[in-house]
Amino acid sequence: MAHAIRFLTMDACERVGEGHPGTPLGAADTATALYRDHLRHNPADPLWFDRDRVVLSNGHGSMLLYALLHLSGYEPFSLDAIRRFRELGSPCEGHPERAPEHGVEVTTGPLGQGIANAAGMALAEAFLHHRLGPDIVDHRTWAMVGDGCLQEGVGQEVISLAGHLRLGKLTFLWDDNRMTDDGEIGLAQGDDMPARFRLSGWHVEEVDGHDAAAVSAAIIRGKADPRPTMIACRTIIGRGVPGVEGTRAAHSARLLPHHTGAARAALGWPYLAFEVPGDVQTAWREAGRRSLPDYEAWQARVAALPADRRRELDRLREGRLPEGWADALRDYARQAAAGGRAEYGIRISGDLVDRLAAVIPELISGAPDLEGATAHKRSLRPFTSADQGGRYVHYGIREHAMGAMMNGMAAHGGVVPVGVTYLVFSDYLRPTLRLAAMMGLPSLFVFSHDSIGIGRNGPTHQPVEYLASLRAIPNMLTFRPADAVEAAECWELALANRGGPSSLVFARQPLPPVRRDAGENRSARGAYVLEEAEGGAPRVTLLATGSEVALALRAREALQARGVATAVVSMPCWELFERQERAYQHAVLGRGTVRVGVEAAVRLGWDRWLGDGGGFVGMSGYGASGAEDDLWRHFGITAGAIADEAERCLGMASGVT
Amino acid sequence: MAHAIRFLTMDACERVGEGHPGTPLGAADTATALYRDHLRHNPADPLWFDRDRVVLSNGHGSMLLYALLHLSGYEPFSLDAIRRFRELGSPCEGHPERAPEHGVEVTTGPLGQGIANAAGMALAEAFLHHRLGPDIVDHRTWAMVGDGCLQEGVGQEVISLAGHLRLGKLTFLWDDNRMTDDGEIGLAQGDDMPARFRLSGWHVEEVDGHDAAAVSAAIIRGKADPRPTMIACRTIIGRGVPGVEGTRAAHSARLLPHHTGAARAALGWPYLAFEVPGDVQTAWREAGRRSLPDYEAWQARVAALPADRRRELDRLREGRLPEGWADALRDYARQAAAGGRAEYGIRISGDLVDRLAAVIPELISGAPDLEGATAHKRSLRPFTSADQGGRYVHYGIREHAMGAMMNGMAAHGGVVPVGVTYLVFSDYLRPTLRLAAMMGLPSLFVFSHDSIGIGRNGPTHQPVEYLASLRAIPNMLTFRPADAVEAAECWELALANRGGPSSLVFARQPLPPVRRDAGENRSARGAYVLEEAEGGAPRVTLLATGSEVALALRAREALQARGVATAVVSMPCWELFERQERAYQHAVLGRGTVRVGVEAAVRLGWDRWLGDGGGFVGMSGYGASGAEDDLWRHFGITAGAIADEAERCLGMASGVT
Repeated sequence: MAHAIRFLTMDACERVGEGHPGTPLGAADTATALYRDHLRHNPADPLWFDRDRVVLSNGHGSMLLYALLHLSGYEPFSLDAIRRFRELGSPCEGHPERAPEHGVEVTTGPLGQGIANAAGMALAEAFLHHRLGPDIVDHRTWAMVGDGCLQEGVGQEVISLAGHLRLGKLTFLWDDNRMTDDGEIGLAQGDDMPARFRLSGWHVEEVDGHDAAAVSAAIIRGKADPRPTMIACRTIIGRGVPGVEGTRAAHSARLLPHHTGAARAALGWPYLAFEVPGDVQTAWREAGRRSLPDYEAWQARVAALPADRRRELDRLREGRLPEGWADALRDYARQAAAGGRAEYGIRISGDLVDRLAAVIPELISGAPDLEGATAHKRSLRPFTSADQGGRYVHYGIREHAMGAMMNGMAAHGGVVPVGVTYLVFSDYLRPTLRLAAMMGLPSLFVFSHDSIGIGRNGPTHQPVEYLASLRAIPNMLTFRPADAVEAAECWELALANRGGPSSLVFARQPLPPVRRDAGENRSARGAYVLEEAEGGAPRVTLLATGSEVALALRAREALQARGVATAVVSMPCWELFERQERAYQHAVLGRGTVRVGVEAAVRLGWDRWLGDGGGFVGMSGYGASGAEDDLWRHFGITAGAIADEAERCLGMASGVT
Repeated sequence: MAHAIRFLTMDACERVGEGHPGTPLGAADTATALYRDHLRHNPADPLWFDRDRVVLSNGHGSMLLYALLHLSGYEPFSLDAIRRFRELGSPCEGHPERAPEHGVEVTTGPLGQGIANAAGMALAEAFLHHRLGPDIVDHRTWAMVGDGCLQEGVGQEVISLAGHLRLGKLTFLWDDNRMTDDGEIGLAQGDDMPARFRLSGWHVEEVDGHDAAAVSAAIIRGKADPRPTMIACRTIIGRGVPGVEGTRAAHSARLLPHHTGAARAALGWPYLAFEVPGDVQTAWREAGRRSLPDYEAWQARVAALPADRRRELDRLREGRLPEGWADALRDYARQAAAGGRAEYGIRISGDLVDRLAAVIPELISGAPDLEGATAHKRSLRPFTSADQGGRYVHYGIREHAMGAMMNGMAAHGGVVPVGVTYLVFSDYLRPTLRLAAMMGLPSLFVFSHDSIGIGRNGPTHQPVEYLASLRAIPNMLTFRPADAVEAAECWELALANRGGPSSLVFARQPLPPVRRDAGENRSARGAYVLEEAEGGAPRVTLLATGSEVALALRAREALQARGVATAVVSMPCWELFERQERAYQHAVLGRGTVRVGVEAAVRLGWDRWLGDGGGFVGMSGYGASGAEDDLWRHFGITAGAIADEAERCLGMASGVT
């Protein structure tokens, strides 16, 4: 059975002339043990909610997964698809791309992400197991793991946290081949990795990874242990190809006909390319059907559920939010519009999440050791090793693990992950934003402390380039609300955005109210005219986001007082504005007027909206440590400076420079 | 002596009404042991090349460092400066900002960075010790470390690597106070941290961190051990303030007069605010002068050096490159211009670094397990535990540690750090780009595999948003050369850029030659007209970077054949172009013509150059797995598509849409 994986891999790699055969050849026996003896799945229903989740964290070994899916009977992974490995349009892509409906749980490739995704899945399972009961949710999460995943910081973070949270149904199958792309593992690593896991509270097994029975026995021992399990499977990279196996070159060896020929001779595999002999095929198909009784029993239990529990389960597995979930936000917006009080930006978001948590029981919040400063815990009790029904994760000072675990939770389904940190620390988890966007996962990231407005903590903690860098990520919505009304609107839009992640960016400092209406969700179009020009058509349009909208309103007053008709546009979400019709965009931007962008951040990207002759008030470098008001003045981000910039642009436009 | 630190901290925090007193109060005794008994420095000459380096990795505890610098006699840290803690313009900023001339070695605050910087400094010291001899370089690197630094992935990466490389003169003083911002450490961590260090090959000591003599004795034992040392100093956070010490609130407690009053009573410190009694002051000043004999002996040894060694040392400590260093690049450019062969992008950079390494003996290259794919090792022998004169670092699969260690090397001085990885993995080390830029450190980052041009590895490995996100970082130069000539020019500009980092971005695939001249460094102005329009003033200007410049040239041919006079502008470095005079910019951009940007990346930022009515050919989402040529066609980035986009824009401009 393992040789079937090996030769599908070799034949596919030989055909396309590239690929990474080292891992599939080395880990074939380990994976066979898992799929043959343990994996709970149904290839005919890849989306079975209570299936085990499998993550190929060393995603470059993608042919391992494709061969397993093909042999187990996942239809999209036909022999034809495998023949077209790495061709445009084949599901057998260079690295696995998320397609749970086909059996690929997450996109992997950037190392370390997959094991953190797996930990997030295991957390989601533990939570749902607690909430829905063991009859409905009781499955395991398996991650195939390479050395890279364990060397990466995000991997180390997740080892610590998963052990600490006692995610007992999480198992890592470490392909311990002692060879990396540069050469022997000893070039860059001397750690005793099993010991590393033990000291973080894992159950550890060490076995011969080419002995499937030994791996299977280790899995059984791991299942019996309440701790997460790491099985060190000692293997030989590129196993089976004479002259290649065990060498550095095996990692991404180009396999030529003489290699595959020699392997056929060495392993006694007299079959043609892409041929799987009937008995092996039968054994694999039988393995693929091994969980059918479990599957049917589960379906029967679900069918027998009381109607309300059944509806709730259907809602969760379809990723729908509860009926009326947005009411809490709309009530809040109405109160805020009527109240007219300035509120600390991030605390507004905390208030909103508190209300959301009350109506969305699957919402799981958390932060990397910033609970107090970000205020997104409130009434939620923590998720701990002893209480896995908790809904707030203390991630520790581990932003990267947080982001990647949130993606794993979102990919698992049935939970709504929210994670909060300072905007400057979004760089620490940036790889996870990209992957959430690429996978289309609705992870909800909240970033606080969004500008020099934080004051005295200084430039390391003052974002200036982050809004631009977030907006650069395709398929993510980046929101920067101006006040409590917009915050509620943006939170509603973020939660409704099911096809990708959202980033909600908040000031730490108080946001003065700029909106006194709360009927229509005006943020839904991304940008809108907040304040029309008075006394004629606008000569100036001020475009602003977040805390700078209030400044723009004051600048407008100054300009109007000088006789310059000025409109103010709030732009809480560029991506949504980009999707609007040209006519709406033109109406909002006020073509024919001088446009000035206002944002306490770098200009990059703003010229999209400013057009020729536009102006900008923002940051051109890093911030400084000082009192908030001193900083706004020091960096020239004031109502007066905005009005002056508008006048300068008007002068340029009329030729009077 | 420790109480002097405590009360300066308390008084400064009380005065400004904020700050993070927990660490300075808790670690005061530990730091006193270091400064009183061990630190090799000279407050009168903070830039002494052979000084010990101190990094406050838990940078929020900045008052600890400011108090130490003040008490030791570093002039900028006057009492007045401390009184203005966290005020705009004070050197006592919220977090330490690099100012080695004042005694602050690196900017810290984002957790984990400081300890990785320290490891980079220790690596630089080990290398220079080997190269210049122990008479000239023989100092230690000390890092004060909090729990956050050790929980962060980058911290975990550096523990593994520093142990493996046996950086024996590196010492971590861990402030083991078992309290983080969220509460007790047990909320998010169960690891046995001393064991964690031991298994990565560290010497570990565990002491009472409030017993300065015990800490000092542990330091002595650590010095005698050839491994790096971690001293776990058990402390109480906020030590000395009744009602605050030992609590979660101590981390960033707001200290009021009743707190400081109670502390004065409890610790028997009857002095006024900001008053340091004479005997304590004397003891501190004496400690500050403890290394004077060493300092003078070192100066004498340097003065006695043969002239050539002296010149070399001066060159290294001033950060000047050797005379004639650029000749190798210029020769290469001339050969490339004459040769006219397409070369693999990243291999061009590898060739250049190979030549540079031959003339810049302090150049240290390295990559995170991508030696083969990035080709920046060549003749360099590895830096290992056994050979610390090596000049290539196998970082393992640890991008974040690489970036932060490079910053530490650059901050140390005397070495030129170059680090190479794939462009998509720049996100893994992005926090280090920002810090290099903020600190003004000339770290040299090389990013390969820069677009869908990599082909079959698929979207995880195909950057689309990275050029925009790199360009968003203030004070970093981002280069994307079009061919071998531009590559040599850009490398020269990057090495000459001493006030901040540079990122050099290369295609994996072959770059066809676009430049046949190599006299003037045309990349120096950031953008230039590569090919003028023929047959009249240009109606279209195509602006392109990197591998797309060759496409733009072919599109120009198509447009010229259709009778559209078209110029092509190559833009290898936007930041340098931004610095040019308006007249030059206008001349290059061809105001009055239709401009089309061409880059296999997102549009964000491009509108700065395109103006109203401009066009763009690039990416709007993620890539795909397939053959390179299939991808260019699939995503519509072809000479034909560029010509069509130009025609479309011309039609719009003339009203014929």
